[in-house]
Amino acid sequence: MIHDNLNVAANGHLCFVGRDTVALAQKYGTPLYLMDEEKIRDRIRVYKKAFEDFFPEGSVPEYASKAFSCKQIYRIVAEEGINVDVVSVGELYTAVKAGVSAKNCFYHGNNKTDADISFAIEQGIGHFVADSLDEIYAIDAIAKQKEIIQPIFLRVTPDIDPHTHKKIATGSVDSKFGIAIKTGQALAAVKEILTLNNIKLSGFHCHVGSQVFDSKPFCNSAEIMLEFIKEVNEQTGYMAKSLNLGGGFGVRYVESDPVIDYRSKIKEVADKVNEVSKKLQIPVPKIMMEPGRSLVADSGITLYTVGSVKEIPNYKTYVSVDGGMTDNPRYTLYESKYTVINATNADKEADVKAVIAGRCCESGDLIGEDIPIAKARRGDILAVLTTGAYNYSMASNYNRVPRPPVVMLTKDNEYIAVKRESLDDIIALDE
Amino acid sequence: MIHDNLNVAANGHLCFVGRDTVALAQKYGTPLYLMDEEKIRDRIRVYKKAFEDFFPEGSVPEYASKAFSCKQIYRIVAEEGINVDVVSVGELYTAVKAGVSAKNCFYHGNNKTDADISFAIEQGIGHFVADSLDEIYAIDAIAKQKEIIQPIFLRVTPDIDPHTHKKIATGSVDSKFGIAIKTGQALAAVKEILTLNNIKLSGFHCHVGSQVFDSKPFCNSAEIMLEFIKEVNEQTGYMAKSLNLGGGFGVRYVESDPVIDYRSKIKEVADKVNEVSKKLQIPVPKIMMEPGRSLVADSGITLYTVGSVKEIPNYKTYVSVDGGMTDNPRYTLYESKYTVINATNADKEADVKAVIAGRCCESGDLIGEDIPIAKARRGDILAVLTTGAYNYSMASNYNRVPRPPVVMLTKDNEYIAVKRESLDDIIALDE
Repeated sequence: MIHDNLNVAANGHLCFVGRDTVALAQKYGTPLYLMDEEKIRDRIRVYKKAFEDFFPEGSVPEYASKAFSCKQIYRIVAEEGINVDVVSVGELYTAVKAGVSAKNCFYHGNNKTDADISFAIEQGIGHFVADSLDEIYAIDAIAKQKEIIQPIFLRVTPDIDPHTHKKIATGSVDSKFGIAIKTGQALAAVKEILTLNNIKLSGFHCHVGSQVFDSKPFCNSAEIMLEFIKEVNEQTGYMAKSLNLGGGFGVRYVESDPVIDYRSKIKEVADKVNEVSKKLQIPVPKIMMEPGRSLVADSGITLYTVGSVKEIPNYKTYVSVDGGMTDNPRYTLYESKYTVINATNADKEADVKAVIAGRCCESGDLIGEDIPIAKARRGDILAVLTTGAYNYSMASNYNRVPRPPVVMLTKDNEYIAVKRESLDDIIALDE
Repeated sequence: MIHDNLNVAANGHLCFVGRDTVALAQKYGTPLYLMDEEKIRDRIRVYKKAFEDFFPEGSVPEYASKAFSCKQIYRIVAEEGINVDVVSVGELYTAVKAGVSAKNCFYHGNNKTDADISFAIEQGIGHFVADSLDEIYAIDAIAKQKEIIQPIFLRVTPDIDPHTHKKIATGSVDSKFGIAIKTGQALAAVKEILTLNNIKLSGFHCHVGSQVFDSKPFCNSAEIMLEFIKEVNEQTGYMAKSLNLGGGFGVRYVESDPVIDYRSKIKEVADKVNEVSKKLQIPVPKIMMEPGRSLVADSGITLYTVGSVKEIPNYKTYVSVDGGMTDNPRYTLYESKYTVINATNADKEADVKAVIAGRCCESGDLIGEDIPIAKARRGDILAVLTTGAYNYSMASNYNRVPRPPVVMLTKDNEYIAVKRESLDDIIALDE
């Protein structure tokens, strides 16, 4: 199977982390998010070890928690000893409530309000990743009021095309994020920062995009960023000690996606960083990256119950499930591909190509089209694989559908990490 | 201005329902949904009166509440005396909690679980709009257990292309919704229904799509549906007394969208229904439609605060606001067009074409591109117009961003219909 935490039991049911998914669906109800805690920890360790082995001391990956944010994931990340990337006070608040030290958090995003900045400083945020001049002035002013010197990174755009979906490509000059190197605006911003008294520049940040399988975009952006560090040094005397290359590597959603050896990809980036730093005669900076998807995506699956099967002669077969764009909007947003298994009949051949449709009153509410699957009937359990990232975190109550719970599994344990939303939760804010 | 509830005050601020939006932003915070209660009521009355005037007695529109669902909107709809279209137990629960009689509710959707059906029957649901054979059998079986005869409509697909966005076009044979007339499956389903003892067929339902400006798709589907009623009658002896034509008309998002006279459009449909019924020599059925968007969209606006303005020479200008795809995912989903006004400087010319970007850590999080707007600065209030439908109802907590409140305005009153979500609400389900 596509991931090593899946197998088929003697009764034909799909197993995840060694457990019968049909039984789990019965126990917890559907839709149901399941996550493999050990796999998350293993993946974090792969990144962390590679960073320790290949990059200068102090180089630590950050978990890009927008991929999957709840108290329990922050606890796991903190226990494993990597840093945290937050993009809102909501994520920071959740992390802090879970016991993460705000010192280990990097606050990203293209728009931080004065209230956001104040809140984060009060929590003791480690670094802001400043995204614009407006924000730089705001952080400096608020830090001044609070009589502190606030460390920041500056986000710049290196103009890299990572060959990913345009909605998740972020490295181009033409972006809502960061400040462009190419236009001279990034250098001007650094000069401005260096005149301000209440912020301290720790280094630079860039981001080329998400779901990238090749190390090349990271190597290319590393080269541009190191050249920028050199140029800044020549022009201002400031030498950046840290460089955040943003993002992380891709994950396998379907069999045709490549198998990634994360450690070797990270080594390729490290080799490039070392080579270019040497060529430019600058000290090798501490390196950060922000894997989110690749830490959690293939640790998650979603279970649904089939509600109807429609075979339309000369057209398609539609299999409707009891979730959809409300718990997984990624096909609706990006036409993202997924692997789907009839968990009730996982031993049967995938003999039908079906549209897997969600339950929302919206034609675009699909999990996928042209999906090979073993013939399904009302009541069958379907498993959609690789849903650990950007599923629960993007879930909505569209159609007033409650959000599913998240159940974490280990070899010896299973527990609820996020409770199922109730109908009373849904109306709780209604007057 | 594009809607008659907007004007510019002497201080240059945008006014909505006669109130200074900059002052409202200050009072309630941003992002902020505002809704014009009187305009909602007026629009409902236009539909209701046209139905009374042009269609047979008993013809009533249903509010498609997925467009905007909260307790207060159901109260308004109930007070105005039209019926309610719900698509989930969540919407039904909200409606019932708001005092709506479940008898006046029609339960739609392509996937109703056994639990959904039981719940709705226990509430006394007026009609299910049955979507598949799987569901027909399930409703019959559960009605039998509960010893009732449950009225239903049968949803069929008339194979109409309404020339709207494919994600909101629903009338084609190739759809997750309904049962196709063209393949003979709809007639076969009717024959099957007539053999079942615990469901009673009240009529037929179809839906051609959303945001339709022309009466033609409705006239075309009315013709096909009336022919289907006639054919069913000839083949089975069953004569449908009611016909639900689904959907409603479009609304103006931008100046180039047509101004719609809803009453005349409804009359055009009625004329067609009468003409075809006469030609086919069948009694004119009671007619239902399901306006959602056109009852609430142009009664709503959203206010944001600008966080940063980036002018990238030779590229674009990005104006980032403190909301985005979390409170309005429609551009991200469908590239829907919006009109945006700098509410702080509403008297100034729209001299810039900007990308209005949301705050999420995602390149695709935009409210719109190439949007004419008066030059903006951090702290300015922006108003995005025509956000009353499919904004609050589709909102998410992506990036753990709390959902904005909904404040209702009348000439003499203003009140909170939905409270602002707090950070503690966001973590409430986390273990």
